[in-house]
Amino acid sequence: MQPIDAKRMTLAVLMAAAFTNAARGAAPGTLSTADPLASWNDGGAKKAVVEFVAKVTKDGSLDFVPAAERIAVFDNDGTLWAEQPMYFQFVFALDRVKALGPQHPEWQTQEPFASLLKGDMKAALAGGEHALGQLMMATHAGMTTDEFSKIVTDWIATAKHPKTGRLFTEMVYQPMLELLGYLRASGFKTYIVSGGGIEFMRPWAERVYGIPPEQVIGSSIKTKFELRDGRPVLVRLPEVNFVDDGPGKPVGIQMQIGRRPLAAFGNSDGDLQMLQWTAAGPGPRFCLYVRHTDGEREWAYDRASGIGRLDKGLDEATVRGWTVVDMKADWKRMFPFDKE
Amino acid sequence: MQPIDAKRMTLAVLMAAAFTNAARGAAPGTLSTADPLASWNDGGAKKAVVEFVAKVTKDGSLDFVPAAERIAVFDNDGTLWAEQPMYFQFVFALDRVKALGPQHPEWQTQEPFASLLKGDMKAALAGGEHALGQLMMATHAGMTTDEFSKIVTDWIATAKHPKTGRLFTEMVYQPMLELLGYLRASGFKTYIVSGGGIEFMRPWAERVYGIPPEQVIGSSIKTKFELRDGRPVLVRLPEVNFVDDGPGKPVGIQMQIGRRPLAAFGNSDGDLQMLQWTAAGPGPRFCLYVRHTDGEREWAYDRASGIGRLDKGLDEATVRGWTVVDMKADWKRMFPFDKE
Repeated sequence: MQPIDAKRMTLAVLMAAAFTNAARGAAPGTLSTADPLASWNDGGAKKAVVEFVAKVTKDGSLDFVPAAERIAVFDNDGTLWAEQPMYFQFVFALDRVKALGPQHPEWQTQEPFASLLKGDMKAALAGGEHALGQLMMATHAGMTTDEFSKIVTDWIATAKHPKTGRLFTEMVYQPMLELLGYLRASGFKTYIVSGGGIEFMRPWAERVYGIPPEQVIGSSIKTKFELRDGRPVLVRLPEVNFVDDGPGKPVGIQMQIGRRPLAAFGNSDGDLQMLQWTAAGPGPRFCLYVRHTDGEREWAYDRASGIGRLDKGLDEATVRGWTVVDMKADWKRMFPFDKE
Repeated sequence: MQPIDAKRMTLAVLMAAAFTNAARGAAPGTLSTADPLASWNDGGAKKAVVEFVAKVTKDGSLDFVPAAERIAVFDNDGTLWAEQPMYFQFVFALDRVKALGPQHPEWQTQEPFASLLKGDMKAALAGGEHALGQLMMATHAGMTTDEFSKIVTDWIATAKHPKTGRLFTEMVYQPMLELLGYLRASGFKTYIVSGGGIEFMRPWAERVYGIPPEQVIGSSIKTKFELRDGRPVLVRLPEVNFVDDGPGKPVGIQMQIGRRPLAAFGNSDGDLQMLQWTAAGPGPRFCLYVRHTDGEREWAYDRASGIGRLDKGLDEATVRGWTVVDMKADWKRMFPFDKE
């Protein structure tokens, strides 16, 4: 059996290398000795990452960590892809309301749908969390897992960002793609740990980030096993199962991974407990916050209230000496479509 | 970075081979061309496994399945290790009641604890599911995840099976250890999907089965993130989170893996929905039931009511042509401590 296995593993090495190369625009398959973090400016953040990886992967070093324990967890919204002017999953929900409107004549008079269909977001969201819950359940529940996966796949293939006109899957941070590839090539297993919906991310996370479905952790609604005409399906129910945000992130990590991460990457106060949980493990640990400081190439908002606020987390990062990325200063290139 | 990676992968190949060899008693590290399923008698069950694996791993074949999609899920109790005369986790709970008794004077008069402490199991369980719930919560909740992991690790290192006097981790089926190793060497990712407690299995599943914590799926109680004197902990709460049994198994698989298994292995009606869910995927799928037919080397009980009943499942296996292992006829060796 060894030949099969050796072949598979060699392929895995090549694929990892190809991914890293593709991420920085080189021809896939071309093994390059160039900087794997080419879109990072030289500076403290890049240096900290590289030194940490060198330390834990150097055989015989006191800080060596076996590959099986090299777990790296990444927030998604605002850390791997953009999150302004609103979470992309929220755009998806709005697009679904428009698409489903004709099948729901009652929505013409029922909030928050009536206002949403008129394009009046402010009125729609006046209902607060309850309205948001109705919006999410109406668009995320009531179908099978296979059907939902197809809905997401179809949507994300064509939906465009309202400001840049780019596909949402193009609004991913080039330096973070490189970081994912670099960590994997160094034996790390990379996970997404997001407040976003687990089944909203899985259909495209492997293609876009190289992260397979089993390494995606997120918020979820309940599902129910049913036999429909003898065919087993999992039906998505309009009931919250798990909220993978804030203190929920370490809970989700323990549930799905069962071991403490070696490294954690986030951008907001909603990631703070994940970073605390990671940092508290024995031996070397690495925590990094991305600060949204670039109002030209992206959005500058870190301490401002609202989506992706980084306030308490930034204070704690300072006290604990966690690595902080200043996007404007530390990143040479923002999105893959930006010029090098 | 390629050298590091190539090295790691070579190590992984050697470890997989060593595991397979160790499982059949050869010196670890000795690469052998001998039968990887040496404890299986030649017959229909063994033939079906080998033919399926050959079919899905043969590059260029119509039935080829990429390694990333080679997910194999195994029930634990009665499939990977024994489950008679009672689930081993139940023995753990009883041992914990005895150990915790001195700290709980109120248990002297409070059921089900009073009867358990007197050794009167029948009276203790007269309270039915409620009594069982109290027993489980009193012994599985109220501590941190790290503390619980240590309690399980300490217990399983010395606790003995009431009938055989063997460690519980020795009461694992030798043919299934070989099957796990064989599938992994063929590029499969092996998962446990058990009605048992996820955190009860994780502390020893890697050592005993070669299955890492992130590939263990099971029932769970809720946990809560807390800072205790500034130190983050996850506290285990006396509240059911998820029951990974029967129709819960496909739900747990979707939650934690996010893709449908290629192969599923069980022994009871509690595994039926997992096998149905697996079988319903497109392309080739493999479902196998283990029948407990050997009253001498193990216990014969398959259609009998009680723990591990295989009744509806056996009928469906017959109708659908799933593979059925007759433990008495198909397995040359039962436990690792049995003579070859």
